[in-house]
Amino acid sequence: MTKLTGIAASDGIAIAKAFLVEEPDLSFEISKSDDSQQEKERLATAIADSKVEIEKIKDVASKSLSAEEAQVFDAHLMVLEDPELRTAYEQKIDDEGLNAQSAVRQTADFYIDIFKGMEDNPYMQERAADIKDVTDRLVAHLLGVRIPDLSTIDEEVVVVAYDLTPSDTAQLNRTYVKGFATDIGGRTSHSAIMSRSLEIAAVVGSGSASKEIKDGDMVIVDGLNGEVIINPDDATIAEYKATLDAFLARKAEWEKLKDAETLSKDGKKFELAANIGTPKDLTGVHDNGAEAIGLYRTEFLYMDSDEMPTEDEQFESYKVVLESMEGHPVVVRTMDIGGDKHLPYLELPEEMNPFLGYRAIRIGLNQPELLRVQLRALLRASVYGTLRIMFPMISNLPEFRAAKAIFEEEKAKLVSEGVEVADNIQVGIMIEIPAAAVLADQFAKEVDFFSIGTNDLIQYTMAADRMNEHVSYLYQPFNPSVLRLIKNVIDASHKEGKWTGMCGEVAGEPMAAPLLVGMGLDEFSMSASSVLKIRSLISKLDSEKMAALADKVVNEATTSDEAEEMIREAVPELAEL
Amino acid sequence: MTKLTGIAASDGIAIAKAFLVEEPDLSFEISKSDDSQQEKERLATAIADSKVEIEKIKDVASKSLSAEEAQVFDAHLMVLEDPELRTAYEQKIDDEGLNAQSAVRQTADFYIDIFKGMEDNPYMQERAADIKDVTDRLVAHLLGVRIPDLSTIDEEVVVVAYDLTPSDTAQLNRTYVKGFATDIGGRTSHSAIMSRSLEIAAVVGSGSASKEIKDGDMVIVDGLNGEVIINPDDATIAEYKATLDAFLARKAEWEKLKDAETLSKDGKKFELAANIGTPKDLTGVHDNGAEAIGLYRTEFLYMDSDEMPTEDEQFESYKVVLESMEGHPVVVRTMDIGGDKHLPYLELPEEMNPFLGYRAIRIGLNQPELLRVQLRALLRASVYGTLRIMFPMISNLPEFRAAKAIFEEEKAKLVSEGVEVADNIQVGIMIEIPAAAVLADQFAKEVDFFSIGTNDLIQYTMAADRMNEHVSYLYQPFNPSVLRLIKNVIDASHKEGKWTGMCGEVAGEPMAAPLLVGMGLDEFSMSASSVLKIRSLISKLDSEKMAALADKVVNEATTSDEAEEMIREAVPELAEL
Repeated sequence: MTKLTGIAASDGIAIAKAFLVEEPDLSFEISKSDDSQQEKERLATAIADSKVEIEKIKDVASKSLSAEEAQVFDAHLMVLEDPELRTAYEQKIDDEGLNAQSAVRQTADFYIDIFKGMEDNPYMQERAADIKDVTDRLVAHLLGVRIPDLSTIDEEVVVVAYDLTPSDTAQLNRTYVKGFATDIGGRTSHSAIMSRSLEIAAVVGSGSASKEIKDGDMVIVDGLNGEVIINPDDATIAEYKATLDAFLARKAEWEKLKDAETLSKDGKKFELAANIGTPKDLTGVHDNGAEAIGLYRTEFLYMDSDEMPTEDEQFESYKVVLESMEGHPVVVRTMDIGGDKHLPYLELPEEMNPFLGYRAIRIGLNQPELLRVQLRALLRASVYGTLRIMFPMISNLPEFRAAKAIFEEEKAKLVSEGVEVADNIQVGIMIEIPAAAVLADQFAKEVDFFSIGTNDLIQYTMAADRMNEHVSYLYQPFNPSVLRLIKNVIDASHKEGKWTGMCGEVAGEPMAAPLLVGMGLDEFSMSASSVLKIRSLISKLDSEKMAALADKVVNEATTSDEAEEMIREAVPELAEL
Repeated sequence: MTKLTGIAASDGIAIAKAFLVEEPDLSFEISKSDDSQQEKERLATAIADSKVEIEKIKDVASKSLSAEEAQVFDAHLMVLEDPELRTAYEQKIDDEGLNAQSAVRQTADFYIDIFKGMEDNPYMQERAADIKDVTDRLVAHLLGVRIPDLSTIDEEVVVVAYDLTPSDTAQLNRTYVKGFATDIGGRTSHSAIMSRSLEIAAVVGSGSASKEIKDGDMVIVDGLNGEVIINPDDATIAEYKATLDAFLARKAEWEKLKDAETLSKDGKKFELAANIGTPKDLTGVHDNGAEAIGLYRTEFLYMDSDEMPTEDEQFESYKVVLESMEGHPVVVRTMDIGGDKHLPYLELPEEMNPFLGYRAIRIGLNQPELLRVQLRALLRASVYGTLRIMFPMISNLPEFRAAKAIFEEEKAKLVSEGVEVADNIQVGIMIEIPAAAVLADQFAKEVDFFSIGTNDLIQYTMAADRMNEHVSYLYQPFNPSVLRLIKNVIDASHKEGKWTGMCGEVAGEPMAAPLLVGMGLDEFSMSASSVLKIRSLISKLDSEKMAALADKVVNEATTSDEAEEMIREAVPELAEL
């Protein structure tokens, strides 16, 4: 019995035989060919075959995964069909006389090395991973080697691999695959994110699972605590089964709350909403009993497209979401492009610090034709439900006033054109820039609501890029300065009779719930899969006691650790989660 | 008479004949040479000759300019002697048979194009400018063309040029050159910064000065209002002479305050300090009657060196500065490397958002051997004056505690070694991260003082990189959120009996002085050249009235514009500056 420690990537415990994914042998000697015409034809065939495969994977993925996660396969298709890469392959075939696989490998290695060299740039690292995933497939076709197809698994297993590519993960069938363990990866790696979407137990970054586990070994993957146990004895299996049962019992208990209101122990009502990327995510919203949509990230509409989506295309998407929610509120964020999100058809400046750059509402106000189209589509859709619109990255009041004015103009235009629009559309802002959090009292007089975007708010408040591994320890949701800003925003909104929601990751964090209940946060918006857990937790909290706790933390804690300690002490229920 | 409008780069008015700097004709046909050995020798000679010239310019510059500005010539020497560039030139000579000037030009154009292509990266743009400046000189030598030598000017003139390179500006002799006007450039371009150091009137970015002005034309350069008047009539000359006289009278009035204390109209005392980069800047400190050094940026010690400066080298620098100030306080900031400041001998990660990355105290705590050497040097120097140490980029209390602990450890070690160290060393922090500004009350219990670094504080509070032209409009020193954070910091320090200084650009901004006096800022640290102006302004302000103004702005202003309007209304004296 051996125990490996890794990173808990997805809740749950899997106990099953190991299915070891062996890396296909794609090694070969770089060599030449006399017939460059033939090599280019082989290349074309391999690209076409790969395209069929990737499209099939994308299709499977779009059913089992969220839109955001399935999107990686669009990136793969773009890499596969990238004209610049294709030209580079063909030039190597023509000019250097290489055979197709050698041309692909040399070209791919060149780009992968460049991107990988940017060690602290996770985006470039991801692009390197995309190129590797796609060109390995191409090379496999050219060599006649089979890439493992995990979709053929038809007995209960735990998948063990050095790493799982997005293509691998997307093929996992959760009926049979109970969990997986990998050697590398972190909590935000592709495979980890996908495991949460698939709701299968997963431990990543175990260091050596694929080396220490043999195909067929009995394995426990404890995704709650980040442990992998190889060939456990009976006592250990029994122990983990008990833990699994307790976990399932908790889930079953949560399940009962699916159609319940969210009430604290003393009966104070809160709204638990879900974040979505596209209408495809609505299933999860309904399955998990979310009471509203607190963040509809419209940028996927733009990113999934080859050109700017038209007003009608946008209208259709918004209408579907609004109708599906049957009158429950839908908070739509206007496009949040820039930073790390780019569009192939919208040229944005190269920036030294893109997170402090030209993005979101800054683009919307500078190129208002983009914002106008989106607002018209939203206004037209507004009659199909309860629409709320929020502008991202607002740092000062003139920005909000300008955006609101555009909204009013488009509304008036539509009305004058005889188009019906709802009367009750609330217009609010994301609070994700410290300046707006500090000046919340002034903003509260003019906006209809706030939604706190903790991911960016923490990043700017601490001046630390959370994607940067050298400073990610400074991404501290419980730093008292962050908690003070959050409280300031909530208090300011209530003073003006407005409401505050939260749509950053902190909203779905159990440890944060006591404070947020205590501060009187009106709406929590999170991954749909967290809704029931948080609803259950809130039902055990007394809002008055939590208010006292929040005051104490905000006034007395000097550090993030102290704040967390105060919460843990006051809320023993957290230890059970 | 023609009037051009540009950017006011440096205070003052110059009225003199134009000295038009014509761009040397460096055009030639790319061509080959049979004798690659001879071409390499020509190249070597041109490099050697250029080196002598650049060293001479650097020498002149280090006398007339601050250390920071003179530093550009170190960069030029590095470009000139860069082994990679040299190899590239020689390869073009050897492999492509080019003559030396063609090899240099083609190589330089390649790099300049790459760097210039990064349009929104001012650092890369500057590197492109450096390469152009240096390789133009090389090509001029190879072509036998003379580059204009502005140091030969020996009559009173206004220099007019499309642009002035750092090499050009550094050669200007302010006895004869009364001012300059350029077509391109902004307030923070090299030439603009240097004009302020030289204290000569300058207008940059006029668009067409070098085209519209002929050599010998009479020209007025109004560096107060950003205007250039070509061939003015007598009435206009008289008018500008009167404005110039008033300006000089103001300066003369300020001059009288050189040895005075800084007192508000109602007698409240403030401390006006200067920012310095190296001991060379001390002359300006004394000439302008600064009462202290509020920011000694020690990174120049590191950046001016080919390897990590030793403890003894650092000790000598700190000692010189402390002794020179004769007991007046010297606030030393520990090294602020990272972000946009790199050292050739210290490897730092490539980062997607370096301003939100691994820098300053984050490096100091992670590689404490660097910090320890600096603190030991400072401790040893402490007996030569009144030393205050501050740590940059502190975002949370554990960081300060860790840095302070290292300080105490090194102090104890030195004492146990029998080395004398001062007893009264205050240890404080920069407030430049929103988290620290929000949590100032907790920090105030543990630090000896605060110094507000407005440049970064504004940047993070507004989530806008001020170097990025697409969002630089969001760099708003008078945004009410920024003003609230500043007031919060000052109030928090006073409540604990501590003091607060400010060493960002806002401290030397006349428009900010009324608010800062009203908030009770204890120490203002700025460019030495601003000290007398601000001392004069403060002497006209009533601290009680300013306190009421500050309260009003902080509580009532909703926008940056409103805040500025309130200040202008309350302080008519500002219009005269």
